[in-house]
Order: sequence, then C-alpha cells, then structure tokens
Amino acid sequence: MADVLKHQGNFHWKGVEVLDYKNEGTHFQSVTRQILSKGHHELPAELRYFEIAPAGYSTLERHEHEHLIVVLKGRGQALSGAEIVTLDPFDVVRIPSAVWHQFRASRGEPLGFLCLVHKDRDRPQRPEVEQLAQLQSDPVIAAFVRS
Amino acid sequence: MADVLKHQGNFHWKGVEVLDYKNEGTHFQSVTRQILSKGHHELPAELRYFEIAPAGYSTLERHEHEHLIVVLKGRGQALSGAEIVTLDPFDVVRIPSAVWHQFRASRGEPLGFLCLVHKDRDRPQRPEVEQLAQLQSDPVIAAFVRS
Repeated sequence: MADVLKHQGNFHWKGVEVLDYKNEGTHFQSVTRQILSKGHHELPAELRYFEIAPAGYSTLERHEHEHLIVVLKGRGQALSGAEIVTLDPFDVVRIPSAVWHQFRASRGEPLGFLCLVHKDRDRPQRPEVEQLAQLQSDPVIAAFVRS
Repeated sequence: MADVLKHQGNFHWKGVEVLDYKNEGTHFQSVTRQILSKGHHELPAELRYFEIAPAGYSTLERHEHEHLIVVLKGRGQALSGAEIVTLDPFDVVRIPSAVWHQFRASRGEPLGFLCLVHKDRDRPQRPEVEQLAQLQSDPVIAAFVRS
C-alpha cells in the first residue's frame, strides 16, 4: 500500500535513478538530481534530492515558483536575492518567488539537499547581461556567483 | 530575502517551537511536532518534523490527504493499509489517501521524520470499534497497532 523508497546509503535510494541536474549547459557544475516523489493532485509538490560535488554549483537563475530546501549532507551556501546564506545539515531554507538564486557546495565537502517545488511550475530564467551586471554591482555577490 | 531555519542540533531549529503532537487524547504516546513551513499558494505543502520517543506511537487514523515522509533520525515502523514497513534514516515513504496508518518508534531509539501534507486537508478519523476489529483480524496488524 505504501510507496517506500529505501535509502541504500550515501543518499542513494533503491530504484531511484541518479540523473543529470539539467540536460545541457555550462552554467552549472557537478550537480546530480534524484526524483523522490513527482507529486500529484492530493499533494502537488515534487520532492527531489540534489547533490553538488565539492566546489560545484547550480545554475544562477530565477522563476516564479518557490523552493523549500532541507539540507541533508555536507556544507555550502546559497545566494537568495541579495543575501548569501550558509547551509549546514538540516537547515531549512525557503527561496521565495522571483529572486535570483544559486547554490554552491563548499570547497571541501559536497552539498546534498531535499528540494521541494510545486509539481506545476514555470521554467527558470537565466540573467541577461544587464541583470548579471546589476547583481555583480554588489562585490559580495560578484565574488559568489558563477555563470 | 530567504527564510532560513537554522538547525541547532538534535532536530531543533532556531525559533521553531516544539509542540504537542495533538491537543488531547490517549490514543498516542510520546510524540512532538515542529512546523517547519506552513505552505501557501505558491507551494501548498506544509512541512512538519515529528519525533516519537522510544516505544512511542502516533494515532492510528486515516484521512483523505496523503503523507510524504522522510525519516531523519532513529528507527521505527509504520502501518500503512495492510502493510507494515520498516523505517530507517532517509527512507522516503508515501502514505496514500484513505488508508489506516500508525507510526511507531523502535523500543531502543526514537523515530524522527519530516512529514509533508497538503496545507488544506481533511481531519483525521479514528477507527470505529468494528473497523478496529476488522484491522485486528490480521494477527500481524493486531500485534502492531496501539489504540
């Protein structure tokens, strides 16, 4: 009756494929994705597990849908709007709608986290040249972002 | 910009109150509840962390809404419909709509888990005498349930 995904150690689940983070692109580095629940009418939330290898990073992007994150493994940081937050195990972070955001693993450790999104969601946008320049006008953000 | 709940060790989060599981009742034992995200229009899922002390148990109940569970701590078991599943760290379990279910911690360890539900959900029902007798007609379930 229950759908059970047994954890098999080191954040792999039986029967769950380890996918590329995205199909193509050079705007991210060393990220994998596992879909733990696709979501449907009764609970319209898709649950994924992402893992970023040491020194890797996700795409700098924004979209209307929100992220709700629970860190499970390692350390890292996230840009969310104009803020850079540290990420340690079991921290819970909401990335609100429409803000530029990017996740980075620490240099020495990976960053693994659950990420919850609406099952029906808009496509991410990457920054235009002018938007990137605007973001990078803050030297702290300029030092953080990878694009 | 981001809403951050920093984990402060042992599954407590800064600023998050440790609540009773339910306001009243004798049909559960040694369960606490923390609300990590209430959910809203953009992501209509409420995220809670429940912890059941060793030998404790949640209410035997059913409802139309689903549960999506991610175990974070300890060991236990869950009844879901006619099935009893073991729960170990990072297992992901979906309890479907309308099935009788109950969570129990192991005797020696607590059971802590994330539980995701729709922010708008129906009230749980407890079994009537005849429904309980029906459930207990299976000796394995009879030995498992606490009510």
